Amino acid sequence: MTVSAGVPLVDLDAALLESVAFDSRGLVTAVVQDAASRDVLMVAHMDREALERTIASGRSWFFSRSRGEHWCKGETSGDRQFVREVRVDCDGDAVLLLVDQHGDGACHTKEWSCFYRVLASGPGVPAPGREREGTGH
Amino acid sequence: MTVSAGVPLVDLDAALLESVAFDSRGLVTAVVQDAASRDVLMVAHMDREALERTIASGRSWFFSRSRGEHWCKGETSGDRQFVREVRVDCDGDAVLLLVDQHGDGACHTKEWSCFYRVLASGPGVPAPGREREGTGH
Repeated sequence: MTVSAGVPLVDLDAALLESVAFDSRGLVTAVVQDAASRDVLMVAHMDREALERTIASGRSWFFSRSRGEHWCKGETSGDRQFVREVRVDCDGDAVLLLVDQHGDGACHTKEWSCFYRVLASGPGVPAPGREREGTGH
Repeated sequence: MTVSAGVPLVDLDAALLESVAFDSRGLVTAVVQDAASRDVLMVAHMDREALERTIASGRSWFFSRSRGEHWCKGETSGDRQFVREVRVDCDGDAVLLLVDQHGDGACHTKEWSCFYRVLASGPGVPAPGREREGTGH
């Protein structure tokens, strides 16, 4: 597949890459966050090749469990993600992508975020000493 | 387990709850975002009971795959999460919790976010017409 060029990522932490804990299917959970709005956009999965393609291309690549193939976000829809940063969580089984989301948004429904539906809500409990800010988009 | 009281969530969308697509293990991916800073804090898993406990208590409950038991974030460490909102993604197999994070942070290492390690980074490609903002904490 030919994809629109992104900007390759640099400053790769090779030891951290080796520590990524792919599961028995060879996958880690990938959370995608919009770097500008900081909205959580979507959750998908990556195998090692998808992670390496993401780093090499600066585009977000995933592995589809249902289709059994790699896919580059937005290549069909035009709603591309250009990656600013890949982070790894403490136990290495999830990655966080900070992206510039282009087009209409991350969701195939054309919503900006896949998490556009609210299941339940409440006031929370503000943490002592921290400013109370909004949760909205 | 006795947990510190949160504020129960309201305005439950019962039809949306029924549509949550638990996998063959009975789990969905749960992404936790700090409602104030909008940092992505952690990724864990929920079964239906953890989701219902979260809604009923306003605290974040998860299911540990390794220990085979439910756990309430922060009950041991004191780094509690009080839930403001639960969102569901487009295909129903992931939920997003917006929380007030208390204590030292979400990570057992005492980092604020479990995603404290950067694997690789780059400039991204700003989306046309959108402001360029920082990615930092």
